[in-house]
Amino acid sequence: LRTGYPEAVFCQGKTPQQIAAIMKELSVRNKNIIGTRATKEDYQEVSKVLPEAEYHEAARMIVVMRDPLPHQEGSIAVVTAGTADIPVAEEAAITAQALGNKVERIYDVGVAGIHRLFAKLDLIRQANVVIVVAGMEGALASVLGGLVERPVIAVPTSIGYGANLGGIAALLSMLNSCANGVGIVNIDNGFGAAYLASNINRI
Amino acid sequence: LRTGYPEAVFCQGKTPQQIAAIMKELSVRNKNIIGTRATKEDYQEVSKVLPEAEYHEAARMIVVMRDPLPHQEGSIAVVTAGTADIPVAEEAAITAQALGNKVERIYDVGVAGIHRLFAKLDLIRQANVVIVVAGMEGALASVLGGLVERPVIAVPTSIGYGANLGGIAALLSMLNSCANGVGIVNIDNGFGAAYLASNINRI
Amino acid sequence: LRTGYPEAVFCQGKTPQQIAAIMKELSVRNKNIIGTRATKEDYQEVSKVLPEAEYHEAARMIVVMRDPLPHQEGSIAVVTAGTADIPVAEEAAITAQALGNKVERIYDVGVAGIHRLFAKLDLIRQANVVIVVAGMEGALASVLGGLVERPVIAVPTSIGYGANLGGIAALLSMLNSCANGVGIVNIDNGFGAAYLASNINRI
Amino acid sequence: LRTGYPEAVFCQGKTPQQIAAIMKELSVRNKNIIGTRATKEDYQEVSKVLPEAEYHEAARMIVVMRDPLPHQEGSIAVVTAGTADIPVAEEAAITAQALGNKVERIYDVGVAGIHRLFAKLDLIRQANVVIVVAGMEGALASVLGGLVERPVIAVPTSIGYGANLGGIAALLSMLNSCANGVGIVNIDNGFGAAYLASNINRI
Amino acid sequence: LRTGYPEAVFCQGKTPQQIAAIMKELSVRNKNIIGTRATKEDYQEVSKVLPEAEYHEAARMIVVMRDPLPHQEGSIAVVTAGTADIPVAEEAAITAQALGNKVERIYDVGVAGIHRLFAKLDLIRQANVVIVVAGMEGALASVLGGLVERPVIAVPTSIGYGANLGGIAALLSMLNSCANGVGIVNIDNGFGAAYLASNINRI
Amino acid sequence: LRTGYPEAVFCQGKTPQQIAAIMKELSVRNKNIIGTRATKEDYQEVSKVLPEAEYHEAARMIVVMRDPLPHQEGSIAVVTAGTADIPVAEEAAITAQALGNKVERIYDVGVAGIHRLFAKLDLIRQANVVIVVAGMEGALASVLGGLVERPVIAVPTSIGYGANLGGIAALLSMLNSCANGVGIVNIDNGFGAAYLASNINRI
Amino acid sequence: LRTGYPEAVFCQGKTPQQIAAIMKELSVRNKNIIGTRATKEDYQEVSKVLPEAEYHEAARMIVVMRDPLPHQEGSIAVVTAGTADIPVAEEAAITAQALGNKVERIYDVGVAGIHRLFAKLDLIRQANVVIVVAGMEGALASVLGGLVERPVIAVPTSIGYGANLGGIAALLSMLNSCANGVGIVNIDNGFGAAYLASNINRI
Amino acid sequence: LRTGYPEAVFCQGKTPQQIAAIMKELSVRNKNIIGTRATKEDYQEVSKVLPEAEYHEAARMIVVMRDPLPHQEGSIAVVTAGTADIPVAEEAAITAQALGNKVERIYDVGVAGIHRLFAKLDLIRQANVVIVVAGMEGALASVLGGLVERPVIAVPTSIGYGANLGGIAALLSMLNSCANGVGIVNIDNGFGAAYLASNINRI
Ligand SMILES: Nc1ncnc2c1ncn2[C@@H]1O[C@H](COP(=O)(O)O)[C@@H](O)[C@H]1O
Ligand SMILES: Nc1ncnc2c1ncn2[C@@H]1O[C@H](COP(=O)(O)O)[C@@H](O)[C@H]1O
Ligand SMILES: Nc1ncnc2c1ncn2[C@@H]1O[C@H](COP(=O)(O)O)[C@@H](O)[C@H]1O
Ligand SMILES: Nc1ncnc2c1ncn2[C@@H]1O[C@H](COP(=O)(O)O)[C@@H](O)[C@H]1O
Ligand SMILES: [Mg+2]
Ligand SMILES: [Mg+2]
Ligand SMILES: [Mg+2]
Ligand SMILES: [Mg+2]
Ligand SMILES: [Mg+2]
Ligand SMILES: [Mg+2]
Ligand SMILES: [Mg+2]
Ligand SMILES: [Mg+2]
Repeated sequence: LRTGYPEAVFCQGKTPQQIAAIMKELSVRNKNIIGTRATKEDYQEVSKVLPEAEYHEAARMIVVMRDPLPHQEGSIAVVTAGTADIPVAEEAAITAQALGNKVERIYDVGVAGIHRLFAKLDLIRQANVVIVVAGMEGALASVLGGLVERPVIAVPTSIGYGANLGGIAALLSMLNSCANGVGIVNIDNGFGAAYLASNINRI
Repeated sequence: LRTGYPEAVFCQGKTPQQIAAIMKELSVRNKNIIGTRATKEDYQEVSKVLPEAEYHEAARMIVVMRDPLPHQEGSIAVVTAGTADIPVAEEAAITAQALGNKVERIYDVGVAGIHRLFAKLDLIRQANVVIVVAGMEGALASVLGGLVERPVIAVPTSIGYGANLGGIAALLSMLNSCANGVGIVNIDNGFGAAYLASNINRI
Repeated sequence: LRTGYPEAVFCQGKTPQQIAAIMKELSVRNKNIIGTRATKEDYQEVSKVLPEAEYHEAARMIVVMRDPLPHQEGSIAVVTAGTADIPVAEEAAITAQALGNKVERIYDVGVAGIHRLFAKLDLIRQANVVIVVAGMEGALASVLGGLVERPVIAVPTSIGYGANLGGIAALLSMLNSCANGVGIVNIDNGFGAAYLASNINRI
Repeated sequence: LRTGYPEAVFCQGKTPQQIAAIMKELSVRNKNIIGTRATKEDYQEVSKVLPEAEYHEAARMIVVMRDPLPHQEGSIAVVTAGTADIPVAEEAAITAQALGNKVERIYDVGVAGIHRLFAKLDLIRQANVVIVVAGMEGALASVLGGLVERPVIAVPTSIGYGANLGGIAALLSMLNSCANGVGIVNIDNGFGAAYLASNINRI
Repeated sequence: LRTGYPEAVFCQGKTPQQIAAIMKELSVRNKNIIGTRATKEDYQEVSKVLPEAEYHEAARMIVVMRDPLPHQEGSIAVVTAGTADIPVAEEAAITAQALGNKVERIYDVGVAGIHRLFAKLDLIRQANVVIVVAGMEGALASVLGGLVERPVIAVPTSIGYGANLGGIAALLSMLNSCANGVGIVNIDNGFGAAYLASNINRI
Repeated sequence: LRTGYPEAVFCQGKTPQQIAAIMKELSVRNKNIIGTRATKEDYQEVSKVLPEAEYHEAARMIVVMRDPLPHQEGSIAVVTAGTADIPVAEEAAITAQALGNKVERIYDVGVAGIHRLFAKLDLIRQANVVIVVAGMEGALASVLGGLVERPVIAVPTSIGYGANLGGIAALLSMLNSCANGVGIVNIDNGFGAAYLASNINRI
Repeated sequence: LRTGYPEAVFCQGKTPQQIAAIMKELSVRNKNIIGTRATKEDYQEVSKVLPEAEYHEAARMIVVMRDPLPHQEGSIAVVTAGTADIPVAEEAAITAQALGNKVERIYDVGVAGIHRLFAKLDLIRQANVVIVVAGMEGALASVLGGLVERPVIAVPTSIGYGANLGGIAALLSMLNSCANGVGIVNIDNGFGAAYLASNINRI
Repeated sequence: LRTGYPEAVFCQGKTPQQIAAIMKELSVRNKNIIGTRATKEDYQEVSKVLPEAEYHEAARMIVVMRDPLPHQEGSIAVVTAGTADIPVAEEAAITAQALGNKVERIYDVGVAGIHRLFAKLDLIRQANVVIVVAGMEGALASVLGGLVERPVIAVPTSIGYGANLGGIAALLSMLNSCANGVGIVNIDNGFGAAYLASNINRI
C-alpha cells in the first residue's frame, strides 16, 4: 500500500456491527480508513466506536481521516453522463479526495445533449486525470477520450435496463472505444477509478 | 412486398451458379432484383444469364433494375464512424437507391474526432432519415441521435476485435442509447436499414 | 429536442420526492413533462407540486401537458402479442399521444391464435407507423413485418421465464427477423419506440 | 436401440477413411446404417467397402439399407422457413424415411410471406407429426404450433448472421414459443428431430 | 386449440383479482380451465367466482374441469431426478391428467444413485411417452433417453446454483444429449411438456 | 515443479522451428520434456535436434523421456464417452504415463448405451483416480461420479455442435454434476487432468 | 456412497419443517447426516426431532454425527483469499471434518497482499490436499497452484460485483489457470470441494 | 491528438495496397505514422512508397518516424506472463517508444513460477507506469497490482483455449482484480495500453 493511503473496507454484504468491528480493529494500525457502499445504519454503528468518522451520503461512504495526506498539485476531474450516475461518481470523488487529490465535479453532461459537455470542456481539460462515469451505452467515454489529451479512466455504471445487462453494455462499449488513452475499471467501481487516478496524479 | 420494390437475394453461402439460377428464375416475375453480400465471381456468373446486371464492388451488391422506381422527394443520409464501416454503409446506400431514394453519403465522421462530425451536421440534418453505421463501441449513434430530429436507424457493424464480440458491443451500445428516436437493426444489416429507411421516407 | 416535445423523466430508481423536485424544476422552462415507470406514490407526490399532472396507471406514467402539441394527421398503431405486454404498450401509446400523435391500440393478437391478428389487419394497415410489442419469442414482429408496408418498430418485452433471459430471447428474435423494414428498440422501451414512431410520423 | 433402426454415424470431423472403416465394421452386425454430415468424398470412400451405399447430396447423408423397415401408416411433415434451411430439413427427411416413415416435404413457407404457409396448411395437417426447420428468428415454429394439433418438433438452424449467434437466436425463440406442444432439438439437428418424430409416429 | 382441451392461464405476475376475473370470463365459453403458477391466494379468490375450482398445491395449479376429457388408453410417465424438481413435475402431471391422460409418477431417481432408476425402468417403459424433469446437469434425460424407445420430453429445471445459470446448464445439457429421440421444452415448463406429451399420446 | 516431472510445451500456435528450439533449450536442464497439441510436422522438426523424441499420434504429443520417473503403485483410469473424445483422452493417458503412472484406458462407454459402461465398471473401480473425458452433454461424469468412490477428474471436450458452444455445455454440465467428488478442468485439457490425477496418485 | 460418509441435505429452498422431516427420515438408516446452506431457523426445527444435531453458524451447516468416521492421517488445508469467502470455506472445512479429515484453516491470504500468503506457505504445504476458496478474480488459485505440489481444489465464490457475474469471473479464471494440477468445482460449492478432497485424502 | 503523436493505422483487414495508400496519404500532413497488426507483406508494399518505414516483426508493426518525439524522463515497464503474450507486449512496447517513452521489457514472469517475477520486481518498480500483458487467467495483473505503487495498465490477451473464450476469461479476471489501481484495455490491445501509459507518463 502506498504510504499514507487509507485502508478501505467494502461494506456491502456486511452487517453494521461487522463493519464497526473491522474499522475499529483497523484503526489501531491505520490513521486513515474509508468504507465504501456504506448505509447510514453502517455509519451510525461505526460512529459509536470511531466518533471522528464522517458520512458522505451521496457517495455512500464512511471516512475516517486522522492524518490527511498532503495535497497534490494537479486535480482529478470526475465527469458523469447522467444524474443517476452520481453515486458512483461521488464514490470516486470522495475517494480521490481522501487520497489527497483536488477534485473537480462535472455532472450530467451526457452525449444526448452534447452542448452541455462542450460548455464544460475547458474545465475538464485543466485536470491531470479525467474519470468518466457513465451507464446505458457509455458513449461519453469515447467522446471525452477524443477531446482530452490526459489519461481517461472510464467507469461503466449499472444504470439502465433490458439489454443493458447490469452495466455490461456500457463496459463493452468503453472497452471498444474508438478513442485512445482510455483505461476501464469494473462496473460501478468508483473507488478503483479514484485509486488509479490518484496513482497517476502522484507520478 | 411494397409494389415495385426489387426482390432481394442474400448471396452469402450460395454458389455463383445457385445465385445465377435463383436470379434468373426471379427475373421472370420481377423487373428489379438485388443481390447482397455478392462476390465478383457471383456477379460474373449472374451477368451470363442477366447481362443487364450491374456490380457495386464496395457494396458487394448485384443490381438488376429494369423498371426503376420513381424517385422520392426527401433523401436518406448514410453516415459512418470509420472507413472500415463503408462496405455495410454502401450496402445500405445502394439498397436505398434501388428502392427509389436519394442518398447522401457522409463517411468517417466517428466521435474520436468529433469536429469532423460537426462539419457535416447541416448536411445530415437535411435528410428525411439518417442511417448511422458504426462498429467498435458505436457511440456515433448516440451522438447523432442527440443532434438530429429525424428518425435515426442505427446499424452496428462487426468491425473491432476482442471484447467487441463480433459486433455485439456496438449492438448493445446502440440499444441502450441515451438518445431517443433510434431504431436498431441486426449487425452488418445495411440492407435492412435501407429497407426501413425507405419505408419511412415513403410515408 | 424537437420543439414542443415534452421533457421526459425516467422515474424508476428515484424517490417520489426526487421525482417531484425534478419535475417542478423542469416545469419552469418546459410546458410539457412526462414521467415513465412511475408508481402511484410518485404521482401523488408530483401532484402536490404540479396539480395539473395526470396519472396513467396502465402505462405507469405521469403526464403534464400545459401546451399540447398540434395533432398529426396520420396515426400510430400499437399492437401487442399478449395481455402481459400491455404496460409496455401503454407506455408507448401514452407517449405517442403526448408527442401529438393519434394512436390505435390493438392488443392480444399474438401468433399462437393468428386469426385474431388477421381480424385486425385492415385496422393496423391504416396507421402510418406500427409499433409491435411482444415478449416470449416475439414472433409477432416478423409476422406483422411481412404483412404491412409501413415502418415497423418492434419492442421486445421481458415477459417470459427460463430461456427467455429477461427479454433477450425476444430481442434476438426481432433483430433476426426474416421480415424487412423492422427497427428494434431496447427491451421494455415503449417510450423510445413511441419517440421514434413520432419522429417518423412527423416527416 | 429400437429393433431395426439403422446405426448412425456422425461423419463431420472424421476422415473418409475413418468413416469407411467404421461403417464396414458396423455392417457386420447391422443391416442398416446411415451417415450424417457426410461429404461426397466420404461417400466415395464408403462405397468402395459398401457398394450398396447411396448418397443423398442435399441431405449430406450416406444410407445403407439392406433390410428396410416396414412402412408406418401415418406420415411426418418436414416444413422449412427458407431455402437455406433445406440441408437440415433433408437430413430430417432422409432419416425419417430410413426409420420407416412416409415423409411430406413443404419447403420455403416462412412467415415473411405467410400466405405461402396457409396454402400448404391442409397438407401439413394431414401428417401425424410436424418437423419445423427454421433459422434466423425461427418464428415459423410458433405460427405452425398455433395452427396444427399434432406434435411439433422444432429444429433451429444456424442460418443467419450477426445477433443470430450461430442459431442461438432461433433456438431461444423456439424454446420461448407462445404456442404449446412444441419440442425443440439442438441447432441443425435434423437427424435427432426425425428420430424423435419416428418414435412418436410409431406409438 | 384441440377440441375439449382446457384454456390455460399463466397466473404468475397477475393479481388474485385479475386471475379470478380472467377465469370467470373464460368460463363462459370454456367448460375446462387450468391455471398454472398459482398461489393459494390466487385459488381462494378464484374459488369465490368458480366454486368448482380445485387447487393442487404441489403443482401450484388451479383446475376447473366441468367436462372432463375422455381418457386416453396409453399413459404418460413423469420422472424426476430430485425432489426439488417435483413442483415442475406436478405441473406436468396435473396438466397431462387435465388433458385426459393417465399419468405414472416416478420421482427422485436421478443418476447419482442410478440403481434407483433401474428399479423403476420397467414401469417407465410401460408408458407411451416419458417426461423427464431434471435440474443441475440434467443427465437423467440422456440416461433415460438411452434406455427407453418411446418419445422422451425433457424439462430442464432451474434447480441448482452458481454455474447452473438459472437452469441454462440443464437446458444446454439436454439439447446436447447423446441420446436420440429427446425433445426439449423451456426451463421449468412442465405445462408445455405435458401439452406436447398429450398431443403425442393422442395420435 | 514436482521433482522429475517433465517440462511441458504447449505446441499449438507455435511453428515447428520454434518448438524445436524451445525443446532443445529446455533439454539442457531437463531430462524429460513433453509437447502437447503437436503435429507430425512439429515432431519431425524436433526429432532433428532431439533424436530420442517419440511421437504419439493419437495424443498429438511429443515425448522425450531420458530419465523416466519411477512407477507409481496405483493406476489412473481414463474413460471416454465417445470415440471423438479419444484425442483428449490420449493426451491425458500419455501425460499420466510420462508422469510415472500406470494407465487403464476404457473408451467409448457413454451413457447412451449404459450397459457398455457397466461391463467395465469393475475395471474402472480398480484405479486410484478416474479421469472422465466427455463432450456433448458430458453426462458420463455424473453417472461415473455416482458409481465410483475414488476421486474423479472430469474433462469436458469441445466435441459437439450448435448449443454445445465449443464445449461450454459439457463444462457447465460437469460443474453442476449431481454426483459428489468430481473436480473439473478446462475444455479439452487432458494434460491438466493427468497432472492433477498424478499429483493425487502420488500422495 | 463411501461407507460411513454422512448423508447430505441441501437445505436452501426448503422450509425448516421439510428439512426436519427429511433428516428425521434419513436418521433411520443413517448414523451421520449433514445439512448445508442451513439457517438457524432450520437448525432449531431439526433439533426438535434430532436433539443431537449441532449447528455451525459460520458454515451455515447442521451436523448430526452419531458414529464419527475414523480420522485420516493426512490433513486438508482450506485457504481463502478474503474474509467474505469464509462462509464457503467453512462449509468445506466442516464437511471435510465430518468426512473424517483433519483440517487446517488459512484465511484471508489473497494475492493483493502476497506476503501474507508466503507467511503461511509452509503450513499449507504440510497438507495432503489444498482447497483454495476465492471470489473476485480468483487469482489465488493460480498462485497457490504454482507453489504447492499437492492436488489443489479450487472453489470460485460469488463474492464480487459488476463484471464478476455472480462468480463466473472467478470460475473462468480458475479453469484457465496457468498452474497445473488444479481441479475446479461449482461456484460456492464448499461441500463438493471437501467431498473430493476427502476422497483424495483417503486413497 | 496530442501534438507530435504519430497517426496510427490498424492494418488488419486491409490489403497491403490499401495500407500503402493510406500511409502515403497520411504522410503528407503527418511526420510520424505507425501501423499495427501489419504483416511483412503489408510492410513490403508500404516501403515502396515510404522507404523510411521500418518493420518490427515481433510487434507486427510498421513505424515511420521522421520527426521523433523528445524523450520522456520516466520509463514504462512492459511485463508479460508467458512467451505467447509477447506479440501483444511488443505492440505496446514499440508504440510506447514511438510516442517518445523509454521502455523496459520484462517477459515470461507469470505467476505459475512466481519466483521469476520477484527476481524482476525492483526493475519493474523503477518504471513510472507498468503495462501487464497476460492471457489465460490473467492473474499476473492482480499480483503485480498488489506489489507496485505505480499506475498499472492491464492488457488481457486471447492466449488460451476452451473456457478462455478468446480472452474474455482474462478480461473478466482483470476487471475483478482484488488489487487497486489497475486500468484495463481491450483484449490484445497493446497499442491502446501504450497510448494510455504514454499519456500518464507525460503528465
Ligand atoms: N422508459 C424510458 N426508457 C428509456 N429512456 C427513457 C424512458 N423514460 C425516459 N427516458 C429517457 O431518460 C431521460 C431522463 O432520464 P433521467 O434524467 O434519469 O430522468 C429522458 O430524457 C429520456 O430520454
Ligand atoms: N406454466 C406455463 N408455462 C408456459 N406457458 C403457459 C403456462 N401456463 C399457461 N401457459 C400458456 O399461457 C397462455 C395464457 O397466458 P396468459 O394469457 O398470460 O394467461 C395459455 O394459453 C398457455 O398457452
Ligand atoms: N495441453 C495443455 N493444456 C494446458 N496447458 C498446457 C498444455 N500443455 C502444456 N501446458 C502448460 O503450458 C505450459 C507451457 O506453455 P508454453 O510456455 O506456451 O509452451 C506448461 O508449463 C504447461 O503448464
Ligand atoms: N492495435 C490497435 N488496437 C486498437 N486500436 C488501434 C490499433 N491500432 C490503431 N488503432 C486505432 O485505430 C485507428 C485507425 O483505424 P483505421 O482508420 O481503421 O486504420 C487509429 O486512429 C487508432 O486509434
Ligand atoms: Mg484522448
Ligand atoms: Mg434525435
Ligand atoms: Mg413490412
Ligand atoms: Mg399446436
Ligand atoms: Mg431412446
Ligand atoms: Mg463418487
Ligand atoms: Mg502445483
Ligand atoms: Mg498497486
